[in-house]
Amino acid sequence: MKKAILIIQCPDQKGIVAEVSRFLFTYQGNILEVDQHVDEEMGRFFMRASWELDSFALREDEISPRFQEEVAGRFGMEFSLHFNFPKPKMAIFVSKLSHCLFDILGRHHSGQLEVDIPLVISNHEDLRDVVLAFGIPFHHIPVTAQNKGEAENLQLELLEKHQVDFVVLARYMQILSRRFIQSFPNRIINIHHSFLPAFVGARPYHAAYERGVKIIGATAHYVTEELDAGPIIEQEVARVRHHNTVSELVQIGQDVEKVTLSKAIKYHLDRKVLPFRNKTIIFY
Amino acid sequence: MKKAILIIQCPDQKGIVAEVSRFLFTYQGNILEVDQHVDEEMGRFFMRASWELDSFALREDEISPRFQEEVAGRFGMEFSLHFNFPKPKMAIFVSKLSHCLFDILGRHHSGQLEVDIPLVISNHEDLRDVVLAFGIPFHHIPVTAQNKGEAENLQLELLEKHQVDFVVLARYMQILSRRFIQSFPNRIINIHHSFLPAFVGARPYHAAYERGVKIIGATAHYVTEELDAGPIIEQEVARVRHHNTVSELVQIGQDVEKVTLSKAIKYHLDRKVLPFRNKTIIFY
Amino acid sequence: MKKAILIIQCPDQKGIVAEVSRFLFTYQGNILEVDQHVDEEMGRFFMRASWELDSFALREDEISPRFQEEVAGRFGMEFSLHFNFPKPKMAIFVSKLSHCLFDILGRHHSGQLEVDIPLVISNHEDLRDVVLAFGIPFHHIPVTAQNKGEAENLQLELLEKHQVDFVVLARYMQILSRRFIQSFPNRIINIHHSFLPAFVGARPYHAAYERGVKIIGATAHYVTEELDAGPIIEQEVARVRHHNTVSELVQIGQDVEKVTLSKAIKYHLDRKVLPFRNKTIIFY
Amino acid sequence: MKKAILIIQCPDQKGIVAEVSRFLFTYQGNILEVDQHVDEEMGRFFMRASWELDSFALREDEISPRFQEEVAGRFGMEFSLHFNFPKPKMAIFVSKLSHCLFDILGRHHSGQLEVDIPLVISNHEDLRDVVLAFGIPFHHIPVTAQNKGEAENLQLELLEKHQVDFVVLARYMQILSRRFIQSFPNRIINIHHSFLPAFVGARPYHAAYERGVKIIGATAHYVTEELDAGPIIEQEVARVRHHNTVSELVQIGQDVEKVTLSKAIKYHLDRKVLPFRNKTIIFY
Repeated sequence: MKKAILIIQCPDQKGIVAEVSRFLFTYQGNILEVDQHVDEEMGRFFMRASWELDSFALREDEISPRFQEEVAGRFGMEFSLHFNFPKPKMAIFVSKLSHCLFDILGRHHSGQLEVDIPLVISNHEDLRDVVLAFGIPFHHIPVTAQNKGEAENLQLELLEKHQVDFVVLARYMQILSRRFIQSFPNRIINIHHSFLPAFVGARPYHAAYERGVKIIGATAHYVTEELDAGPIIEQEVARVRHHNTVSELVQIGQDVEKVTLSKAIKYHLDRKVLPFRNKTIIFY
Repeated sequence: MKKAILIIQCPDQKGIVAEVSRFLFTYQGNILEVDQHVDEEMGRFFMRASWELDSFALREDEISPRFQEEVAGRFGMEFSLHFNFPKPKMAIFVSKLSHCLFDILGRHHSGQLEVDIPLVISNHEDLRDVVLAFGIPFHHIPVTAQNKGEAENLQLELLEKHQVDFVVLARYMQILSRRFIQSFPNRIINIHHSFLPAFVGARPYHAAYERGVKIIGATAHYVTEELDAGPIIEQEVARVRHHNTVSELVQIGQDVEKVTLSKAIKYHLDRKVLPFRNKTIIFY
Repeated sequence: MKKAILIIQCPDQKGIVAEVSRFLFTYQGNILEVDQHVDEEMGRFFMRASWELDSFALREDEISPRFQEEVAGRFGMEFSLHFNFPKPKMAIFVSKLSHCLFDILGRHHSGQLEVDIPLVISNHEDLRDVVLAFGIPFHHIPVTAQNKGEAENLQLELLEKHQVDFVVLARYMQILSRRFIQSFPNRIINIHHSFLPAFVGARPYHAAYERGVKIIGATAHYVTEELDAGPIIEQEVARVRHHNTVSELVQIGQDVEKVTLSKAIKYHLDRKVLPFRNKTIIFY
Repeated sequence: MKKAILIIQCPDQKGIVAEVSRFLFTYQGNILEVDQHVDEEMGRFFMRASWELDSFALREDEISPRFQEEVAGRFGMEFSLHFNFPKPKMAIFVSKLSHCLFDILGRHHSGQLEVDIPLVISNHEDLRDVVLAFGIPFHHIPVTAQNKGEAENLQLELLEKHQVDFVVLARYMQILSRRFIQSFPNRIINIHHSFLPAFVGARPYHAAYERGVKIIGATAHYVTEELDAGPIIEQEVARVRHHNTVSELVQIGQDVEKVTLSKAIKYHLDRKVLPFRNKTIIFY
C-alpha cells in the first residue's frame, strides 16, 4: 500500500488536530495513524499522521504546497511530508565487530527492513566477505590520524554518489568530524555500548565492570557534535552478575546493542522519530 | 484541572477524526490527548479524546446530547463521556493474602490513585486492622458453599449503598456468580497469579513449578463468566530459577501481581482501557 | 585453557561435596567453578564442577575410572565427564525462516560459540546461498508426507557421518519421528515461538493475537516425544500492544526467538544444563 | 529449621572447597547451599556455605574457634559465622515519601521478611500514623543544618539501645555524617532513585527527563562516605516514554525503587551479599 506520512510541529494552540484532519478528509484521505504530543513545558505541539494515497485526491507533488497554503501557514507549522516509496537509502559504517552488521543484513535479507543498502563502508577489511555474500557492495576506506580528512572526503563522495538518506554507525570506531555530522543532521544513528548517560566515552564495559553495576545497556542515538550526547532514540538493558568477566559483559551487551540499533533503524524508517531539542518523541 | 474524556467506537470510515476534532474545536475545547486505533480485521474504529473543561463552551450536561446530534448519529457511534470528577468509587475484595491490598492502600494514601475507596470486603477477618489503620471501612462477609447467594446479596447491597463504580479483586479467592458479574460488566478487575493463558485455574505457581518454566507472570483482567478468560488489561513477568521452591515462586510472583494489578487500576481510572470483544485496547 | 567438567547426580546425602572436592584436590585440580543443587522434594543432589587440566595429575582417560572407584560408586552417583576440547559438533536444521539461522551463524563467525558446525540441513533451498557464504555445507533434504521416513534416514546418515553431537532446530517446521528423537535424547534443542505452556502447537502468534495477551515469548527446550512438552532450557519475552498486527507479533517475536535459542545453545555447550525428569537445572 | 551460614574470603589457592566441606562433613553438617566465586583479576576466593544445625556435632559457640584452628588459619581466611536466629534487627529511616516504607512494612506484616523492626526514625511527622498501625514504634527526630550532629547522636543512641544490626534508608532525604556511616560499615542500605552511575545526586528524575532517556531505574547500595558511590546491591529498571512528565517518571520510578530496595534487604538478611572493594558478590 502506498502511503503518505506528515510530520508536524508548531506552537501549541487550539484547532490543530481539527484542521489537519479536515484537510485530509477534504481530499479523501483515509487516515491510517494519528499520533500527537504536546510538550506542556515548551508549549509545543507535535503530530504524525499517515494516510493511504490510492484514493487521495491530490497528486504527490501537490500535497505540500496545498497543505502549506490551507493549514500550515496559519498555525506557524514546520512540517515535512514523506512517502513509503521509493525505499530510503541507508549506508552502514562498521569497523571490525560484526554483530550489529550481521543483524541488520539478516533482517534486510528476510525483508524485515524497508530500506535499500547501497553500500557498507569500513575502515578495515575484515568483514568484506560476508557483506559481499549478502550481495551488498563493500568499500574499504582506511582511517588514520593523518588521512582522516581525506577519508571523510571519500566517504562523503560515496554517500552523495549513492544518494544516501541516512547513515548507521554499526559499531564504527571512529569519531566523525563536525563537517560530516552537519552534512547529516539527525540522520546519523549510532549505537553506544552503554546505558547513556552512564559510561560515556570509550570502554564502557570496562567501566561497568569496575563500578559493579547489576544491569548493562545500550543506547541508539542521533550523532551530534558533543560525543555520546545526541538525542536518544532507543535503549535496552540486560542483567549481569558478579561472576561475569568483562568479556562476558561484552557478549551479553552485544545482544542488547544489536536489538537496540535495529529498533532505532525501524523507528527512523517508519518516520516515527521526531527529534526536538536534544530529545526524541517516538510515536511507536 | 477539570477534564472530559470521550470514548468512541464505530465502523471505520473516513472523516471521523476530522469531525470529532471539529466538534471539540467549535466549542473551544483544548485537546489534551487524542488516541485512535483501527482494528483492520473487524473494520472498527476506536478513539479516546480528552480536553480541558474550563474554557469549554458547553455545560457538562449539554455535551452528550450535542455530540450525539452533531457527530455520533451520523457515524453510528457508540460513545461514553466521562469527567475526572467526582472521583470514581472503587471497592476492594480480598481474602487473606495482603500484598495487593497493601499496595493499593499505600498508593491511595500517598495520593497516587485518583479514586475513593468507600469499603473493603473480605471473607476473612485477618486484614481488618490494617485496613482500618488506613481509615477505610472493613466489612467481613464470610462465604461458604451454603450461604454463597446470601453473601453475594450482602455484597451487592453494600456496593449499591456506596454507589461503587467498579470492583477490584485483590486476591479474592471466591468465584463470583453469573449474576454478580453481569451487575458489573467490564467493571470487575481480577489479578490472576499466572501469565495467562498459561496455568488457568487454581494453584498456578504449583503448575509453573511442575512445568519448570523459567519465567512466571501475573495477569490483570476483567472478569467474565468464563473463568480466567476475560479481556486482559495488563501482564507482567519475572525470571525464576531451578532452585526456587514453590513458596519462593509465590513470593516472587506476589511482587509481579501487585504491580500488575495497580497498573490495571490506573489504566481503568484514566479511562484508557477500551474492551472490545474479548480483548482490550489500552491507550497508555 | 584446557578444562574438564564433571556432571553428577545422586540421592542426597552428607559428604558429597567434601568427597568430590577432596578427589579433585588430591590430584591437584584447580577448581574453576562448583555449583550444586538439591531437589528437596525428590531428595536428589546435582553438581557441576570444572577444573583446569594443565596441572591435573590424572590423564584424561584415567579420570572417569578413578572417580568411579574412589567416589561415585560409594554414593550411587550417575556422572558424566566432559572436556572443552575438541569442540562439539552441532547440526542446524532449518526451513525457510532465516532469523535464528543468521543469528547462530553470525555468532559462530565472530567466535562467540565454541562449536563446530559441520552442516546445515534444510527441507527447502531458500537459505543455501547465505549458509555457503558463511563457509558451511548446506544439504537440501525435501520432506513430504510420503518420503518422511526416507528423509529422516538421509538426515541420520549425515549426522552420523559428521559425528554430530547435538542438533538445533532453528525454526525447522517438521515434526521429528520418535525414532529420530530417541537417537538424540536431550540433544535436540528446539525453539518454540511462544511462552510455553501458553500456545502449544502451530500458529502461536495467531493464538496470542486472538487472546489479546500483552506479552509474547519464546521457549528453547529439548525435544521429547510429546510435542512442545520437553524440558525448558530458556525463555524470554517481549511486550506487545493492541495495535500490533499478527505480522508485527511475528517480527517482535523473532527477536525473542533468536536470543532465546542462542542462550540455550550457549548453556548446552558449556554443559550448564542438567535435565532431570521434565525440567532442567541451569547452572549459569 | 535452624541453620548456620559461613562467609569466607581469602587468597585463591587449591583445596579450599575440599577443606571447608570436609570440616562440615566431619562434624556431620548437612550442607544446604554452597556458592563460591573466584575473582581472577584479584586472585581472591569467596565462599558462602549454609548447613543445618540440628544434627551438627559442634555447639554454636564452638564452631568459629574450631573452624579457625582447623581450616581458616591455614588458608589465611577472613570469615564470619551467622545463624538464622535470633532475627536480625533492622531500623528504617524515612522522610515524607511512603512507598518504600509501606512496601517493607507490608512484607514484614505478611511474614515475608525474617527480621525484627524495633523502630522507624523520621525527620518528619507525616508517616507516624501508619507506622503505628503496623505496630512499630515511630521516632520523630527533626534534622536541621543547626542540630544535625545532635540529631545523629539521638539516632545513634536509639540504634544502640535497640541493638540494631543494620539500617535501611527508605528514601531518607538527609546525608549521613562520616561518623554515622563508619558506625555501620556495609550495614546501611540506601535506595537511590536512578540507575547509578547515571544521575548521581539530587533530583535524578528531573535529570532523566532532561536527558530524554527511554529507561529509568533505581539502585540499592551500601552507603559509603562518597555520595551515591557505595557498593551496588541491586538495580532494576522500567521503560518510560516521551509523553511521561517528571511526576509520571517519579511514579513509575517509585515502583522500581520499592522492589529494588526490598530485594536488597532480602539478600542482606539471607547473608547473600559479600561486599569486596567497591563491588558486591551476590549469591542469589
